[in-house]
Amino acid sequence: MSTLLNLPKYIESVVNPSQLKGMSNDELAGLCASLRHDLIDSVSKTGGHLASNLGIVEITVALHKVFETPKDKLIWDVGHQAYIHKMLTGRKERFNTLRQYKGLSGFCTPVESEHDAFLAGHSSTSISLAVGMAIARDQQKQKHKVVAIIGDGGLTGGMALEALNHLGHIQKDVVIVLNDNEMSISENLGGFSQYMKRIKETFFYKDIKEKLDLIEDGLERERLQAGVWELISSVKKEAKARIETPGIVFEKLGINYTGPVDGHDVKAVVEAFSRVKELKGPQLVHVITQKGKGYAPAEADSIKYHGVGAFTPEKVEPAQVAKESKAKTKTYSHVFSETLIRIAEEQEDLLAITPATAEGSGLVQFGKVFPERFFDVAICEQHAATMAAGMAKSGMLPVLSIYSTFLQRAMDQVIHDVGILNLPVIFGIDRGGLVEDGETHQGVFDIAYMRAIPNMRVFAPKDGRELQNMLYTVCKERSGPAAIRFPRDKALNVDSEWPLEEIDLSKWETLVEGDGPVLLAFGSMVDVALSSATELAEQGVKVQVVNARSAKPLDHEMLNGILKNADRKVITLEEGCLTGGFGTAVLEYAASLKLKTPSQRLADVVCIGIADHFVEHGSRSKLLDLNGLSSTKVSEKVLNFLS
Amino acid sequence: MSTLLNLPKYIESVVNPSQLKGMSNDELAGLCASLRHDLIDSVSKTGGHLASNLGIVEITVALHKVFETPKDKLIWDVGHQAYIHKMLTGRKERFNTLRQYKGLSGFCTPVESEHDAFLAGHSSTSISLAVGMAIARDQQKQKHKVVAIIGDGGLTGGMALEALNHLGHIQKDVVIVLNDNEMSISENLGGFSQYMKRIKETFFYKDIKEKLDLIEDGLERERLQAGVWELISSVKKEAKARIETPGIVFEKLGINYTGPVDGHDVKAVVEAFSRVKELKGPQLVHVITQKGKGYAPAEADSIKYHGVGAFTPEKVEPAQVAKESKAKTKTYSHVFSETLIRIAEEQEDLLAITPATAEGSGLVQFGKVFPERFFDVAICEQHAATMAAGMAKSGMLPVLSIYSTFLQRAMDQVIHDVGILNLPVIFGIDRGGLVEDGETHQGVFDIAYMRAIPNMRVFAPKDGRELQNMLYTVCKERSGPAAIRFPRDKALNVDSEWPLEEIDLSKWETLVEGDGPVLLAFGSMVDVALSSATELAEQGVKVQVVNARSAKPLDHEMLNGILKNADRKVITLEEGCLTGGFGTAVLEYAASLKLKTPSQRLADVVCIGIADHFVEHGSRSKLLDLNGLSSTKVSEKVLNFLS
Repeated sequence: MSTLLNLPKYIESVVNPSQLKGMSNDELAGLCASLRHDLIDSVSKTGGHLASNLGIVEITVALHKVFETPKDKLIWDVGHQAYIHKMLTGRKERFNTLRQYKGLSGFCTPVESEHDAFLAGHSSTSISLAVGMAIARDQQKQKHKVVAIIGDGGLTGGMALEALNHLGHIQKDVVIVLNDNEMSISENLGGFSQYMKRIKETFFYKDIKEKLDLIEDGLERERLQAGVWELISSVKKEAKARIETPGIVFEKLGINYTGPVDGHDVKAVVEAFSRVKELKGPQLVHVITQKGKGYAPAEADSIKYHGVGAFTPEKVEPAQVAKESKAKTKTYSHVFSETLIRIAEEQEDLLAITPATAEGSGLVQFGKVFPERFFDVAICEQHAATMAAGMAKSGMLPVLSIYSTFLQRAMDQVIHDVGILNLPVIFGIDRGGLVEDGETHQGVFDIAYMRAIPNMRVFAPKDGRELQNMLYTVCKERSGPAAIRFPRDKALNVDSEWPLEEIDLSKWETLVEGDGPVLLAFGSMVDVALSSATELAEQGVKVQVVNARSAKPLDHEMLNGILKNADRKVITLEEGCLTGGFGTAVLEYAASLKLKTPSQRLADVVCIGIADHFVEHGSRSKLLDLNGLSSTKVSEKVLNFLS
Repeated sequence: MSTLLNLPKYIESVVNPSQLKGMSNDELAGLCASLRHDLIDSVSKTGGHLASNLGIVEITVALHKVFETPKDKLIWDVGHQAYIHKMLTGRKERFNTLRQYKGLSGFCTPVESEHDAFLAGHSSTSISLAVGMAIARDQQKQKHKVVAIIGDGGLTGGMALEALNHLGHIQKDVVIVLNDNEMSISENLGGFSQYMKRIKETFFYKDIKEKLDLIEDGLERERLQAGVWELISSVKKEAKARIETPGIVFEKLGINYTGPVDGHDVKAVVEAFSRVKELKGPQLVHVITQKGKGYAPAEADSIKYHGVGAFTPEKVEPAQVAKESKAKTKTYSHVFSETLIRIAEEQEDLLAITPATAEGSGLVQFGKVFPERFFDVAICEQHAATMAAGMAKSGMLPVLSIYSTFLQRAMDQVIHDVGILNLPVIFGIDRGGLVEDGETHQGVFDIAYMRAIPNMRVFAPKDGRELQNMLYTVCKERSGPAAIRFPRDKALNVDSEWPLEEIDLSKWETLVEGDGPVLLAFGSMVDVALSSATELAEQGVKVQVVNARSAKPLDHEMLNGILKNADRKVITLEEGCLTGGFGTAVLEYAASLKLKTPSQRLADVVCIGIADHFVEHGSRSKLLDLNGLSSTKVSEKVLNFLS
């Protein structure tokens, strides 16, 4: 049992961050302990991001001690490490609703609190926002502070580096707090992070230098053997050189560097923030923290505790958690990654790429089996896509596993570097559809924007087996770029022993025959359509259910047969935005047929999908129903369409 | 008359880069002079990028002297500075077809030559491609060299920094040639470029140190006044410290730095390339060049000569060129930028942002009038969009001028940082539609991807006057994000003295009444529809022409009136991709009406726009016709639809 659960609960009395102002360093340290207690308690019940929030307790407390929200602007990168911030800014009572439908968001959002200066969910945005807000502040002749809090992972994102570069040029008063926990979601990668690692070694050098100072003080030079004094001096000099310019890269870019600071020494962090608060120009405070700090299982395995479901804090053992999660039904991510390993055994030029989602995508396992053929490029979606294009141009078969919402970052690269040359880059679009993380993470736009790219093909499997065969087929065919999207959910109908088979991807298949309306269902909606067909049959409506596995190209042959019957009704179903999505593809095709055969009346086509709004957070099943994509809701719409 | 025109023409004899291998340094220098001659001669006839290519002559010659294409891979960032490379790799004879329809591309493309390792047009992609190709090479156990040639401007792009970071980590053998010409398209910005500037000062320090060495050698310490010797030593030490670590930022990121090298000393460049060719791991060679080198007018005004139309090299005077271009009819870019200045005079919180397209967008003038309210953020589209979101959240009115093709880089930021919070960020989408630069630069996807974003509004003016009023209206309204797209063309119907008026943006207007088909034309297609209407009237077909100025929201009231007539034909027209575009929006709306009133037959809608392919280079009018968007082609389609 974690001893933390026995810590005092100072937090009960903190309802407003201004209460921190009068606290002593000891009281702040006590508050930190108390916050850790409550955090573990809460997250164990609701699930959520644990390790990163445990790591940032002292930083958060120090920020609220030194700065004054909402006047001063705290901009949290990604936002999933702002739980402590939320607890300190009047949201502790509602913390048990975290990530629940209509409950607290798992990220920052100004809709929830004036203490959240901006919304975040995706990484690497905070410095750009801070620059924008600092420019606005100066235009408006205001005096408040603007603070971006970003992790070492976030700093690998190109847009954060763009912003750093711009800030170094315009020299606005912005404080950047770099929360360096030596590990972003996946293993921390990049030359930059190795540089940061070397900075941290200054702790070590400082130590050496101080010890040598003591030795020198205690010795008399004359009595030493020849050379020893020189040796000591030379080591000292070397150590000194290394500690003198730890932040030289930042300094060279025009950003004043402070640090490194021990991020679990609240006094040290408060002092560092207080100091930079008074300085002009761009400031970066480099704070070293440990993910999962204060909770042994999370310290030991911060990746597992990055985002967790509910658990029992008293009993939990890392090994146990691992066993439980393995016993669960496979997700589509698992099916994708394990199938990729099987294909890679056969196709030796297959390379797997992930932008910092090795765990979420299940590709960690691929990396273990094929370490030389696995590339986690950090939070660099743009680089990932274009690097894949370079690989494909050189005759390799790159497979990029990427979440739908993050692929938005690489749209230009998919068009410009992959699309134009029609290169065989395979995109495994994970979390395609609704997710519980809220509006920043909904994977609803991918069908629309991928479909608009010439040469791109867009597929979605109806179940786990089809995902296996789809992936196998695109890897065998290698005929230009292809995207396979799948939802964040348990996979239906799958067995990892099943043989991999090539399938005709551009052909749709009728799963249920019927003389009523035709349901053209894409990917995850096939199962919904099947349930709806059963429900409708009970009402005497016999729908035809089609597994429309390819949104691009469409199965023109089957569509021609369906559309030419003017008395038929056609209903498209997709877990994606209605604007420009799969249903739209069917409408566009029908309209093009009219241009060819103007006199012909075609079947009426209507589309069911996600309306033109941002979808809030909640469980996937809840959100599907709210957005009209549960079987009940689909059945209702079909009956309404017929009446 | 430029003396260059009298230089010897070595180039005549160079038809293959292998011929450079045997040349002496003097011969290479002569070749460089000859290439400059031919470059000016060619570009003066065809138009194209002049200044950047004049600056990179020695680098290109040295690359082909040291490396061996196509075995070694030369990856040109952006690709518009690869003219000399093209001339050296068998394309000199066709150089007079540069950027002409079916002629040589203005960029690199492997379709054109095996010596072009990849395609480029957008900036900052080369290092990612090089990393991908180096990984592929090592997987395939090959031995060739991979070289990325990138400018200092390109290095401001976030994806280039992502790639640098990744390369520093994986330590592949990649050579990066940094062509530092102190000026990207717009003024070179960013802390990074200031750092580079300081590196260049090492030339100066090196000089000082060498001189002091000589002084020391010539003096006898004992005879000097006390202190003078120490003074010399201290200055020497300071100078030495500065020249010892010019590339420290790169070194810290794990990239071995060589330089700075004088980029117009072909011998020095050849030596530097030869040296790094033998080294393992990531290499960066920092080469200092001057844009427009060797052609006085271009040296004096490299921005004007960045991309030019045809000119007379013997007679040209910078002042003359400036006068000529001013006498021309205004482009939509000009109308946009001058109108923005007028609005900014009234609305003091309006801020203008451009990602390195200050000249192309015409915003240079805004920057002169309002230097404190103008932000050129370098080639950082992502940062630009999110910074704008930060400004808007703080109560300012940011206007981001961005080319359609480059806005693809900021899609995630528009969704995540602008869209979700419904912030009033105005997007001026320049070059929306077909451009002569070829497939990498076509601005054809913006309607589709912007329309899919909740809260976004998407407008396009029929002429210059409407652009003025649209921009004025969105700046007055401030009701969430709005995009106004306009083509790269001369503006119709505009006078900069006309008063600015608010208009009802969501209402379409009928410009020509008729009982035949209805032409719903978006933006630039209104003028085409009007011409087509005249042509069709001669054939006895009286079409109705509607200026559908808003693709989102649609004018439902007008559409309801049109669609409820089942005998009517509706034709949509847009200079954008058919997939997911404006016409699709009309189809989607018609389909949604069917769901509401299932028994009703609606008007048939068909869409005219750009089919699902990448559009090659050529003049805009040529491309419009080829893509069925000239008035003649539209009239043909309408008649066909009616028959």
